[in-house]
Amino acid sequence: MNGPRTGVPYIAGTGTALPGDPVTNESLARLLGAGARWIEDFTGNRARHFATDLDTGACSLTLTDLCEQAADAALADARVDPGEIGFVVLGTATPDHLMPATVNLVADRLGIGQVPTYQLQSGCAGAVQALDTACRLLRDPDATDDDLTGLVIGGDICNKHFALNQDFSRLHPNQLVNYMLFGDGAAAAVLSRRPRGHAVAVRRVFQRFVGLGRPPGQVIEWFGAAERDAGRPAATEDYKAIEEYVPRLAEEIVRELADDTGWKLDELDYLLPPQLSGRMTRRIVEELAVPAHEVSCVAVTGNNGNALPLLQLDRLMPLMREGERALCAAVESSKWIKGGLALEKVRGGADAV
Amino acid sequence: MNGPRTGVPYIAGTGTALPGDPVTNESLARLLGAGARWIEDFTGNRARHFATDLDTGACSLTLTDLCEQAADAALADARVDPGEIGFVVLGTATPDHLMPATVNLVADRLGIGQVPTYQLQSGCAGAVQALDTACRLLRDPDATDDDLTGLVIGGDICNKHFALNQDFSRLHPNQLVNYMLFGDGAAAAVLSRRPRGHAVAVRRVFQRFVGLGRPPGQVIEWFGAAERDAGRPAATEDYKAIEEYVPRLAEEIVRELADDTGWKLDELDYLLPPQLSGRMTRRIVEELAVPAHEVSCVAVTGNNGNALPLLQLDRLMPLMREGERALCAAVESSKWIKGGLALEKVRGGADAV
Repeated sequence: MNGPRTGVPYIAGTGTALPGDPVTNESLARLLGAGARWIEDFTGNRARHFATDLDTGACSLTLTDLCEQAADAALADARVDPGEIGFVVLGTATPDHLMPATVNLVADRLGIGQVPTYQLQSGCAGAVQALDTACRLLRDPDATDDDLTGLVIGGDICNKHFALNQDFSRLHPNQLVNYMLFGDGAAAAVLSRRPRGHAVAVRRVFQRFVGLGRPPGQVIEWFGAAERDAGRPAATEDYKAIEEYVPRLAEEIVRELADDTGWKLDELDYLLPPQLSGRMTRRIVEELAVPAHEVSCVAVTGNNGNALPLLQLDRLMPLMREGERALCAAVESSKWIKGGLALEKVRGGADAV
Repeated sequence: MNGPRTGVPYIAGTGTALPGDPVTNESLARLLGAGARWIEDFTGNRARHFATDLDTGACSLTLTDLCEQAADAALADARVDPGEIGFVVLGTATPDHLMPATVNLVADRLGIGQVPTYQLQSGCAGAVQALDTACRLLRDPDATDDDLTGLVIGGDICNKHFALNQDFSRLHPNQLVNYMLFGDGAAAAVLSRRPRGHAVAVRRVFQRFVGLGRPPGQVIEWFGAAERDAGRPAATEDYKAIEEYVPRLAEEIVRELADDTGWKLDELDYLLPPQLSGRMTRRIVEELAVPAHEVSCVAVTGNNGNALPLLQLDRLMPLMREGERALCAAVESSKWIKGGLALEKVRGGADAV
């Protein structure tokens, strides 16, 4: 097709990869020497997944492995062949290497070549940033393939920061809490220019840096060969700022999506709220007070960063019926990013571009 | 403006930031205990810039600092106010942190907020990947601002891997060579939907993963808190593969750009070849045998990764006259990415969308 086009991108299929069995608060409490009840109360999380074996300390999987598994599942769910994929976008805060980008290692595993690939360095809003990037690629008027499909992946793995050989009783609570909040995992979605598979239209997608003049709420470091004993803390959080701003930003996102789409919040079918922790998510949902079915996962997956919104989408897909609508809000507290999605299930063909 | 558009994006201005004075082969030879002549012969580089002081080992600048300086220069060159910037894209292999993304720290420094930001994890083709992303954003039919401008930045800094407190005579040549090849720096470009500033039209831009089934030519690691004494090498290269494939990929890129644009290579005005090292670049230019003015920088800047093609653009801008044409080829050898640009200088207004 020649000339430009304002197409509506569609979610055709989704898939997830969560390593190993769920790690319960009881097993985590044994490792950390903390009370399982305290972990539950503080985080609101009941379980999480780790690529690292808590007993042996061995890490059996890389981010590349998890992303490959999630992508395979999404391709199967969408009934799309890897050879049809026109681009790959990966969002992660924890790539396997600085170079090569993990997205290219994953593409290689999937047998996808000769296509543009993008790896976004991102956090809890990273999946929305990746979806935003994919939607722009699908809308690109210079892209001539009306059957263009793209693969979006989000994932994180904390094994490199996951030091098990230490005395946790000597760890500062701010460091200890990271072992309670985070988890490993990846999730993926296949997006298409024409309605395919689940045929869920992406009516709106946005992501925006909103941290101007605001200190970071979270900093996660990496270390180079020159500083392996630098002694800088690997992660620092400002939980006060996170507790204050995230619910406010979540409400702004939902209101903006409702204004942009003209959808009435009291007629919304599904709400996908930010997933920092089970406790924060509960609080945000209560404050939003939107009478829609909540689709959350963090309480049982842990906070696996870039995977979260895609994990929620994977849970949403089988629930949605024709004409049903969903709003997704994601907040990255590192330097403060807002992300939002407005989704509507259509029948294949009915909403074709 | 409503409805879609197939616009031609323009380079309005460029800027660079190279830390400190050039580090000559003589000063580097003193540090490494190698011969200055050998460094010159092996790399073809005469100088490079480091954010780290070779005498004290102190690093005075971050990637955020370098990117801010380069962006300031590009904004001034384009006569664009930070408040006009509609998005920011940063390409780097060496972000200051895993989170927050450096692009958001830079946006904060520049006073740019409430806009989409993207940080691509990338290498020597990263600047082209960032330009490709920016051009897609400028072509986005759903973007309604005809005066939309975006900021593209590429930069790398190797201080975290730059271990000065060691006996270099005991370092394997494969490790030693990294101290000779690489450098620190950042460069930026302001792109616009209408012709502004230098008004250099981006006629073609592409980037593509081409490493299917091919082992990485370069791996650069990062280390987490759990493995600061892991002892993995920070960087490993397959120079044999790099020497074999990069010239071949460079030729493919130039031919593809010539085919896509219909431009005759013997009438081309400027050639911006890959910048792995002064020696490799010389070899590539000789093999290409395109009778165009070569615009290179690596021999005096060192290989500063994501900054390279933007450094070349900054040198190209003042040279180009109306109607002149340039081709830029960039190759990332990590997992093999091809990047290409076809540029043509137009007068403001003459090529308006």
